[in-house]
Amino acid sequence: MSEIRQNAATREWVIIAPERARRPRHTFLAMERAIVPAYDENCPFCPGNEEVTPAEIWRLTGEDGWRVRVVPNKYSALSQGAELKRERQGLHQSVTGVGLHEVLIETPAHNRTTAQLPEEHVAEILACARSCYSRAIDDRRIDHVVIFKNHGAAAGTSLTHPHWQIIGLPLVPSQVRGRVEDALRYFDDFGECVYCRMIEDERSSGVRVILETDSFITFCPYASASPYHTWILPKTHAAAFDAITLSELKDLAKNLREVLSRFYHGLEDPDFNLVLRSAPRSHAGVAYYHWYLSIVPHLATPAGFELGTGMFLNASVPEDCAATLRNVVLPER
Amino acid sequence: MSEIRQNAATREWVIIAPERARRPRHTFLAMERAIVPAYDENCPFCPGNEEVTPAEIWRLTGEDGWRVRVVPNKYSALSQGAELKRERQGLHQSVTGVGLHEVLIETPAHNRTTAQLPEEHVAEILACARSCYSRAIDDRRIDHVVIFKNHGAAAGTSLTHPHWQIIGLPLVPSQVRGRVEDALRYFDDFGECVYCRMIEDERSSGVRVILETDSFITFCPYASASPYHTWILPKTHAAAFDAITLSELKDLAKNLREVLSRFYHGLEDPDFNLVLRSAPRSHAGVAYYHWYLSIVPHLATPAGFELGTGMFLNASVPEDCAATLRNVVLPER
Repeated sequence: MSEIRQNAATREWVIIAPERARRPRHTFLAMERAIVPAYDENCPFCPGNEEVTPAEIWRLTGEDGWRVRVVPNKYSALSQGAELKRERQGLHQSVTGVGLHEVLIETPAHNRTTAQLPEEHVAEILACARSCYSRAIDDRRIDHVVIFKNHGAAAGTSLTHPHWQIIGLPLVPSQVRGRVEDALRYFDDFGECVYCRMIEDERSSGVRVILETDSFITFCPYASASPYHTWILPKTHAAAFDAITLSELKDLAKNLREVLSRFYHGLEDPDFNLVLRSAPRSHAGVAYYHWYLSIVPHLATPAGFELGTGMFLNASVPEDCAATLRNVVLPER
Repeated sequence: MSEIRQNAATREWVIIAPERARRPRHTFLAMERAIVPAYDENCPFCPGNEEVTPAEIWRLTGEDGWRVRVVPNKYSALSQGAELKRERQGLHQSVTGVGLHEVLIETPAHNRTTAQLPEEHVAEILACARSCYSRAIDDRRIDHVVIFKNHGAAAGTSLTHPHWQIIGLPLVPSQVRGRVEDALRYFDDFGECVYCRMIEDERSSGVRVILETDSFITFCPYASASPYHTWILPKTHAAAFDAITLSELKDLAKNLREVLSRFYHGLEDPDFNLVLRSAPRSHAGVAYYHWYLSIVPHLATPAGFELGTGMFLNASVPEDCAATLRNVVLPER
């Protein structure tokens, strides 16, 4: 029989139904990955095409040219050059699309995913993401910053070249607001951060842990929304991402690169979304919220049930997923 | 410049960014639809294979055999033959997977979508869905019923043969709970149902309306989450779907069939999810919540931004989508 589990932090329920894994499947989720060249002359993120992107914001220079670049998104969802105005007409409320939408190009190599980059390079990417975060939150019109990466077409990528995106919003999304409120309620009830409690809980049971280092812990949450859903949490409490120190950045790079390598080698390079969930500006230093990275491989397609309830139907058991990932044999470096 | 709009009922924000429609796209969303035969001997829902499904719950018989069938889902996410138990261990809360998961087979024809069925047949499907709903909510262990249909692989279908699904849950999902609470707050503040207010608003402006009949109105919401996102609402206030009358069922069939025909002929038969959002059991007769049908065509892929914020990035303007759908030339019947 299936089991319905609740995530203590987000209060979201998930149906864990391993029996459903037996049902016949369409083949399109097992799409073969095309062979990607190391360089594509038509790719706006490949070296030599630097003029195709909007004016560069930042670059890290290495021995043979740039190693990481940040540019504005050419098809930006939001723009900084506008006045923030809120309008209300009867039932309709709108805000002008003020904000920031940037692209962090991870590497000059068109075909190298984060899993294949050296750990030091991943640390550089994360340091760059922290700078982008700080710069975005410096704009007083921006209330919330979200950083994410889409890998593969099923995860919504429109460009293959490895990149992250940074979006600064002039408001707090209602989902984020709800999570902060839920965390505050837990704090009021129990006098501690629910995410800190969860870290202790995962450490003591160990069954869902993939990796633990000095500053971070990587695990499949108890109420994982989908197969191999993974969270990476800082062990020292911090509500906002930009509180991260240099040594923590290196440690985060180790966790991130390792779990992505385990996906790459153990799950045949699945499409995935990666999201950095940090506190809204107004909750940056609070004791009750905790930033983290969430990674969701696309091994199942959310459908009408998920859309109509906000719940997820997961045909895999989180403890099994964690064990599988722990057991992936990684190539020697 | 883009605009950020809020749905007054769900309080969810959406970025309406038509400039993004210009960006290059992967081709996989324009997947060609394979030609589907009228009969597939390996399909468990095709006539002759009635023994392959679990024992039939209900059928509507026509002149040449059944016209609509209801069967339990063979790979059920939940089961009725179990005891409802809630367990709490430290941080972890779980509920046994008690509930109902049924399949409504729309037609014996393997290759006819809802858009292609006669209006009377669609009314029969909806009447059948109402019976399923009532039967599910009769089980006192079930707190919430969701009815949905997935059309096409990108929408999560594992079987091509046209079918709907009914899931009865032993709890209220947090997203649904949030929406009911938001509707209650609006009612407290303004003394009316926010959905009734929205209907009046859409009728008076008319720019987002696709179709209006005696009992229903079909429109693209002001804060549509994605291109051609469509809502169908009953004009007479009702919180739960099973309050629908026979004449309203016929009128709903007219709205549903017509909008799906406009998708089919105007948007080249897109994959879509359809969800019937009704009140939880405990809110069945309330003045502040309002049931409706939501249809989301898969013309864009939700990605890290949507996952990390619960917001949506929509590259189309709802008023333009409604106009396009109104202008679709339907074949004569």
